[in-house]
Amino acid sequence: MSLQFSIEARGGDARAGRLITPHGEIRTPVFMPVGTLGSVKGVPQEVLEELGVEILLSNTYHLYLRPGIEQVRQLGGLHRFMGWEGGLLTDSGGFQVFSLSQLRKVSEEGVWFRSHLDGSAHQLTPEAAIAAQIGLGADLIMAFDECTEYPADSKRAHDSMELTLRWAARSKRYFEEHKHEVPWARNSKLETRNQSLFGIVQGGMHPDLRKESAERTRALDFPGYAIGGLSVGEPRALTNEILAATLPLLPPDKPRYVMGVGTPEEIVHYAAMGVDMMDCVLPTRAARHGLLYTSQGKLNIKNAAFAGDERPVDPECGCRVCARYSRAYLRHLYSSGEVLAQVLNTIHNLAFYLDTMRAVRHAILLGEVTEFLSGYRARLNSPAR
Amino acid sequence: MSLQFSIEARGGDARAGRLITPHGEIRTPVFMPVGTLGSVKGVPQEVLEELGVEILLSNTYHLYLRPGIEQVRQLGGLHRFMGWEGGLLTDSGGFQVFSLSQLRKVSEEGVWFRSHLDGSAHQLTPEAAIAAQIGLGADLIMAFDECTEYPADSKRAHDSMELTLRWAARSKRYFEEHKHEVPWARNSKLETRNQSLFGIVQGGMHPDLRKESAERTRALDFPGYAIGGLSVGEPRALTNEILAATLPLLPPDKPRYVMGVGTPEEIVHYAAMGVDMMDCVLPTRAARHGLLYTSQGKLNIKNAAFAGDERPVDPECGCRVCARYSRAYLRHLYSSGEVLAQVLNTIHNLAFYLDTMRAVRHAILLGEVTEFLSGYRARLNSPAR
Repeated sequence: MSLQFSIEARGGDARAGRLITPHGEIRTPVFMPVGTLGSVKGVPQEVLEELGVEILLSNTYHLYLRPGIEQVRQLGGLHRFMGWEGGLLTDSGGFQVFSLSQLRKVSEEGVWFRSHLDGSAHQLTPEAAIAAQIGLGADLIMAFDECTEYPADSKRAHDSMELTLRWAARSKRYFEEHKHEVPWARNSKLETRNQSLFGIVQGGMHPDLRKESAERTRALDFPGYAIGGLSVGEPRALTNEILAATLPLLPPDKPRYVMGVGTPEEIVHYAAMGVDMMDCVLPTRAARHGLLYTSQGKLNIKNAAFAGDERPVDPECGCRVCARYSRAYLRHLYSSGEVLAQVLNTIHNLAFYLDTMRAVRHAILLGEVTEFLSGYRARLNSPAR
Repeated sequence: MSLQFSIEARGGDARAGRLITPHGEIRTPVFMPVGTLGSVKGVPQEVLEELGVEILLSNTYHLYLRPGIEQVRQLGGLHRFMGWEGGLLTDSGGFQVFSLSQLRKVSEEGVWFRSHLDGSAHQLTPEAAIAAQIGLGADLIMAFDECTEYPADSKRAHDSMELTLRWAARSKRYFEEHKHEVPWARNSKLETRNQSLFGIVQGGMHPDLRKESAERTRALDFPGYAIGGLSVGEPRALTNEILAATLPLLPPDKPRYVMGVGTPEEIVHYAAMGVDMMDCVLPTRAARHGLLYTSQGKLNIKNAAFAGDERPVDPECGCRVCARYSRAYLRHLYSSGEVLAQVLNTIHNLAFYLDTMRAVRHAILLGEVTEFLSGYRARLNSPAR
């Protein structure tokens, strides 16, 4: 069974859809929280369920190093390993190899790198990246690509794009030959269903290369397409320009995933542009630094002004943190270095991101996406209370 | 309204009782988890409720330094500050002054000490300790005492006991004069109810001094009595000897609280000896070090043998951790330094302690406490699986 994606409503370029994966149905546009090592830092899986999380992202590079792909495969795959019955997406490992590892060496074959943990040497190729992702068994997996650095001149971005295209073809070939090896094969309920492999569009900040990459990746025929190589340090206007140039070239009936974005304003904006899936460490990482997102803008819980503030983080939020705890208490936890600060801050920020995306989806379904966008921007620009 | 304590059943020296506090009913014998700074490290209050926690202990010394008593008082007291509607007990601050602070100087008046956080100078007297505890507003509060160090010769233990007795009288006097200042006075539902101040028996490891301390503390007429100065490094046989010598001297109709104990075996044993209340950092601290308590004994989750172990921590445990997560996953979280390891380990250990105490109470109610004790010991001594 190939991936099912249906679009239920459109509003301008925005789409409200449903993605049917072997582990449940995902309503889009969707924000995917990041569970790097098979855990959204500090938050138990049952709380993610309560928050309405339908799909999580996990990182192949990190799981490859710890606890190792074979370990997870033998334990029935990542869903079973982490006790998560919802959707999962893994990246190919390429991005972390480029951003975290030391002494990497890129060749036609793949990438040699040293672990950021212990310096041990490893090689990742398109085949190895797909084999790892089959071993993990996420519902949606990604072709192995080179995330072109920023800035990159036209020649460099072109060569990198060509490499990504060749790796995409190799990723797909390996996947088609090995997809039956997914660890769910043990589970009779799911054995007739497959993982789905997404292609990734690269091309740096060059609209002509993005166009070529989109067309040639599309020609390889994937069930979904990601746009990679954004949010790598470029100005926001450039991100928007590249997205605007790339999105119309992707098949209108397939899910579109922009990797590694963004702020609350950005995810709303990208959803309005027709992006269906996004992921970002921002809500979880910011939470660990005491930065909380609210309907009135960002709040730094470390601020002394909150020491006596009995209000919840966001009076408009219905999450379990805002229902029970005051800003004064959260500030005390953070200032005292209590672990519960990270737990509660992360739960709130995820609730805010998920609520935001659900509100966008609802506006698309109601045909009110334009009104939603202008209201959202006005509210964010009003002074925080 | 003074503290209500009723004994529902006895089995040998053990008692199953009910303690009615301004914030709910507490079934005894009870184990009180420690929430040092107004938070059981890593565990949200709603999870503590799910675990059936009826009373938490919090530390006056820590809250005095951060966020400060006045801050908590202005926010309505500790219950409201931390979003906890169940029972609370605070210690007097004395124990932490003796164990954590620097450059302490004990006089008749009280203790001068320097904060372990920033070296700032503070004085704690019986009056100040009770004022602080009234400001925090826990249901049960403790007289200011000197925790006699171990070893202490007869002269030293006697002098220390005499000081504690004079401080107990001053604690009680201050409390009677100021108990109406508890911050719940704002809450009309509770304003007619009071905190309850417990006296503390000291006397080192000298049974004759313990006897004298018990009788003279009793003469001051407290609604409950604690036995302090145990679990300070002495051998277990000595703890048992002192407890056996002291418990019969306490009023049979008042709650008895042994401070700072213990292992699962110890809390079962002490409950069988007639102790009604206990607290200890052991389950929560051990959890942070990867030590998990199970019906088959202790388990070190760091052990490589668990890397591929799909079983729950304790197959006989019904907690949310054992219902969902494998030893393999918990080992991965711990080995990878994931914060979720601390969260889940702590939840499991608390569940184990609370289940253990509930099982003891149930055995007392059923008149089977002797059978329970022999079965419990046999199981703990069997080889772990």
